[in-house]
Amino acid sequence: MAFDLLESVTGPRDLDALSFDELDELASECRAAIVKRVRATGGHFGSNLGVVEATIALHRVFDSPRDRIIFDTSHQCYTHKMLTGRAYGFIDDARMGEISGFTNPEESEHDWFRCGHTSTSISLACGFAKARDILGQDHNVVAFIGDGCLSGGEAFEGLDNAATFSSNLIIVVNDNEMSIAEDQGGIYGDFAELRASGGTAARNFFSTFGFDYRYVEEGNSIPALIAAFEEVKDIDHPVVVHIHTTKGKGDEWAEQNKEAAHSVKADGGSTPAESYTGIIRARMLEKMAADPEIVVINAGTPGGSGITAEFRAIAGDRYVDVGICEQHAVTFSAALARGGVKPVYFVASTFLQRAYDQIVQDLALNQSPATVLVFQAGFSSIDATHLGVFDLAYTGNVPGLTCLAPTTAEQLLAMLDWSLDVADKPVVIRVPDRVVHGPRVAFDASDIARFVIEHEGSDVALVALGPTVKLADAVADELSAHHGIDPTIISATTYSALDRPLLFSLEKGHRLVVTLENGVLYGGFGEKVARVLGPSPLRVVCFGGTKEFVDRVSTEELQQRYHLEPAALAADIAATL
Amino acid sequence: MAFDLLESVTGPRDLDALSFDELDELASECRAAIVKRVRATGGHFGSNLGVVEATIALHRVFDSPRDRIIFDTSHQCYTHKMLTGRAYGFIDDARMGEISGFTNPEESEHDWFRCGHTSTSISLACGFAKARDILGQDHNVVAFIGDGCLSGGEAFEGLDNAATFSSNLIIVVNDNEMSIAEDQGGIYGDFAELRASGGTAARNFFSTFGFDYRYVEEGNSIPALIAAFEEVKDIDHPVVVHIHTTKGKGDEWAEQNKEAAHSVKADGGSTPAESYTGIIRARMLEKMAADPEIVVINAGTPGGSGITAEFRAIAGDRYVDVGICEQHAVTFSAALARGGVKPVYFVASTFLQRAYDQIVQDLALNQSPATVLVFQAGFSSIDATHLGVFDLAYTGNVPGLTCLAPTTAEQLLAMLDWSLDVADKPVVIRVPDRVVHGPRVAFDASDIARFVIEHEGSDVALVALGPTVKLADAVADELSAHHGIDPTIISATTYSALDRPLLFSLEKGHRLVVTLENGVLYGGFGEKVARVLGPSPLRVVCFGGTKEFVDRVSTEELQQRYHLEPAALAADIAATL
Repeated sequence: MAFDLLESVTGPRDLDALSFDELDELASECRAAIVKRVRATGGHFGSNLGVVEATIALHRVFDSPRDRIIFDTSHQCYTHKMLTGRAYGFIDDARMGEISGFTNPEESEHDWFRCGHTSTSISLACGFAKARDILGQDHNVVAFIGDGCLSGGEAFEGLDNAATFSSNLIIVVNDNEMSIAEDQGGIYGDFAELRASGGTAARNFFSTFGFDYRYVEEGNSIPALIAAFEEVKDIDHPVVVHIHTTKGKGDEWAEQNKEAAHSVKADGGSTPAESYTGIIRARMLEKMAADPEIVVINAGTPGGSGITAEFRAIAGDRYVDVGICEQHAVTFSAALARGGVKPVYFVASTFLQRAYDQIVQDLALNQSPATVLVFQAGFSSIDATHLGVFDLAYTGNVPGLTCLAPTTAEQLLAMLDWSLDVADKPVVIRVPDRVVHGPRVAFDASDIARFVIEHEGSDVALVALGPTVKLADAVADELSAHHGIDPTIISATTYSALDRPLLFSLEKGHRLVVTLENGVLYGGFGEKVARVLGPSPLRVVCFGGTKEFVDRVSTEELQQRYHLEPAALAADIAATL
Repeated sequence: MAFDLLESVTGPRDLDALSFDELDELASECRAAIVKRVRATGGHFGSNLGVVEATIALHRVFDSPRDRIIFDTSHQCYTHKMLTGRAYGFIDDARMGEISGFTNPEESEHDWFRCGHTSTSISLACGFAKARDILGQDHNVVAFIGDGCLSGGEAFEGLDNAATFSSNLIIVVNDNEMSIAEDQGGIYGDFAELRASGGTAARNFFSTFGFDYRYVEEGNSIPALIAAFEEVKDIDHPVVVHIHTTKGKGDEWAEQNKEAAHSVKADGGSTPAESYTGIIRARMLEKMAADPEIVVINAGTPGGSGITAEFRAIAGDRYVDVGICEQHAVTFSAALARGGVKPVYFVASTFLQRAYDQIVQDLALNQSPATVLVFQAGFSSIDATHLGVFDLAYTGNVPGLTCLAPTTAEQLLAMLDWSLDVADKPVVIRVPDRVVHGPRVAFDASDIARFVIEHEGSDVALVALGPTVKLADAVADELSAHHGIDPTIISATTYSALDRPLLFSLEKGHRLVVTLENGVLYGGFGEKVARVLGPSPLRVVCFGGTKEFVDRVSTEELQQRYHLEPAALAADIAATL
């Protein structure tokens, strides 16, 4: 497909000269460009296909960047990027890496925030509107939200505050009848009524806040959208424009498979033969068959943690998708546990941080015996908005939490069994990225804090958290082959407690303790070892990530940067000695 | 006043035999008991006075603990405690210390959770209801929410999920027309309509979720409440019972001064002559007069950070109380900053943790130049639900945040000036508990990470974070007087960065580095010093709090427990040498 129109658009104002037919043609080109990019790099697919027309209409009516348009989560911003001078990132294979899948002020003056977590756009719009009013400016502020983003509590907080404004604030709600998976929650019944009534139903969630309200049934019709947006442009009070769109619009597969098409992998992207999501799913099904008290909870992101449609069908009412609201998911799990059943919350590291207070108060302080499985933790090449490297600190330092970092699949399953069958307290299990099988020692639940000496050497002790023990093995080989050192290898499978006796026993025969972890050092595992061994004559060097936001940096490059490669690490150790 | 009836009630079922007149008499005794306790110990006053009748009616109709009654935040649980065998904690001066101001399962089987942060009760009720359904039980589950608790996003998440249940779930909304301060947010307009229409208004926030709905205008009438609760008892679907109560009911001062009476100090409780809230308020007024771009944000708790009615009146529309919703407050501040004005968010340490994700994503990742003033941080004798000891970890380890810990009032004000006038990035200032004036060195904004040598000694270096430098002085005196050691004293005024050159320079002339901080050691300041100095021959000992939830333990006892007293600390140091 040619991208003639799209290539002619260098900025939003180039839309002004286009006829409705040309705008439709532009929409087709945008769709083709989305398909092209997502095939090449992976990304949010159905989400972006559904809002092509809405984005074109927004940019035709509003005058970005004078008018501020804020995309919630910004996973639906592809067309916005194309219309604001970044089409090359979608149609030029060589330049796709230059732009990310999320808004980023460093990329364009049309992007107002780096977003990647849901439900913040209305709060952001309130801030921009208030700043505008204080500064005596008069532009429009538009929040574009939907596709699951309304179920997070912060969206409600934003709505509640926005409704009190007495100046321009436009909230476009993209209602595509979906979240990532199916919509979950009472308000979606209200949305269905609004859709069925063409926006005239008396029961109207948005009106209860006091919002002015408009409904656009033809949310994929550029003329209809332009008319609606022109009506609210320069409005002097808060208004909600509820638009009804088709997720995946224009791609038959995406329209039919809305959940699978929400976000997809690049063509030819390989799937490992064996994954922890698969291993955990199989074990959970076994356990749930045997124990009717086990319940699985997820907050609107089942795919990321391997909760397949088949799993959901088998689990029946013992699978609860609460929608994208992690705070509720944690508190709900805590109460399930206190209510006498066995909840297991499946969540990604980057999203669990949205419930830090609930982890502290409802799980830990209350010692509620829920199990939390943390996926997508550790170094990865992901966008800066979705890093999974902070959880060692934000869970490991909370009193009363047992935080486990398994080394092998067998250990992971033993921990899961223990948490569900024995432990009467909250347990966090950090799921590693790549599957490793034994023969590492089994998990010894009788003493969680016990570290295990896997190899007795001398001079240097490598203390490796969870899966980094594989790195420790490789470092030991390097030290032995090239530096004449036979280091002790110690495996730690928890980051919430330290094996003090073992650590102090290293004073005999060792000069240096080296810690390894798969996360940011600040607040992490190694620092605790350094503190505990601070009074000892033993020296300590910690290896892990530094305190920084990394944006789509390959794992290999991160390992290089943090000296987490065997040869470099061995050389560092030798130099320290 | 005698407490004859109250003393005769040993549990909720003792209410069954009482006539309506006797229940009214009991309500009077409960009020007198609340007054007595709050005079003696301080506590939530108007909040509890308003719900005496509702609590009596709940316990008359529902069968606790078979039926689960969950009090949101649990700051309105005093009558509940009295009716469940704990009246002694209110009427017996000698036993007041035995019970806390919040629900606590360790105190009573009628208490289901330790709560202290708002907006969780509906999520908890969902968990209890789901567990009940899985276990085939048939009791009622009641969430009691209101008095400001509905504006937190998690309450919305809970409502959204609760509405999808097809089994018993009763949500009692206590609408007293107040939060801690005035109600803030669009939904309160809806509540006003519902009150004005006797619950019949077509615009109904709760109905939009799909809830069955009842309204009780006479929320301080026991017969009216009993009738309403009997109607919904054993209901087979979710229902909202909206009750209209008078905050402070029965106490003339509390009814007239609803915000001041929300929570009060014990009679004769002393107020220090000078406080940081006062010092900061004065400086902020000066700065706001000179700079029209400064905006103050608070999330429904103005009193705790010294935002007086007078301050609000002067600040006008440059003071924004967003209601009790910390997530929104942080994101809103981030957008204000990006929108070109200068937001200063006033928040308590225990509540800021509710916005950890927003700190990471919206403040830090986006480098939004907002200022956050963290109050009530450090060791205190507060309830376990309100500890201010975790923020060193949950802010100090976030990339891109500048976290400052001033030593003196002069330093604090210099930091505030710098953050508002110079720093173009997010700044967190941890406000100390007690005012100390110079002559500590001024704040050097040119190099935030620079630690300052306040005294050059030898052998031992005391590295003190923020206000703990006062303790370092006293320890130095002890070391000098009793152990023949003249330690170096170093003042650190940031916990987000370390002065590596200075730390390593201590290798000359020192054997031991001692760190001091006013918070939990895990993830805190000292651990970072220990890590950085890990490879050095210097030994390091860190002093601060351990990883535990402490519940109403006096600061003195905590200092003893953590060896944060000069003599004990000096002895520890001497022993380590």
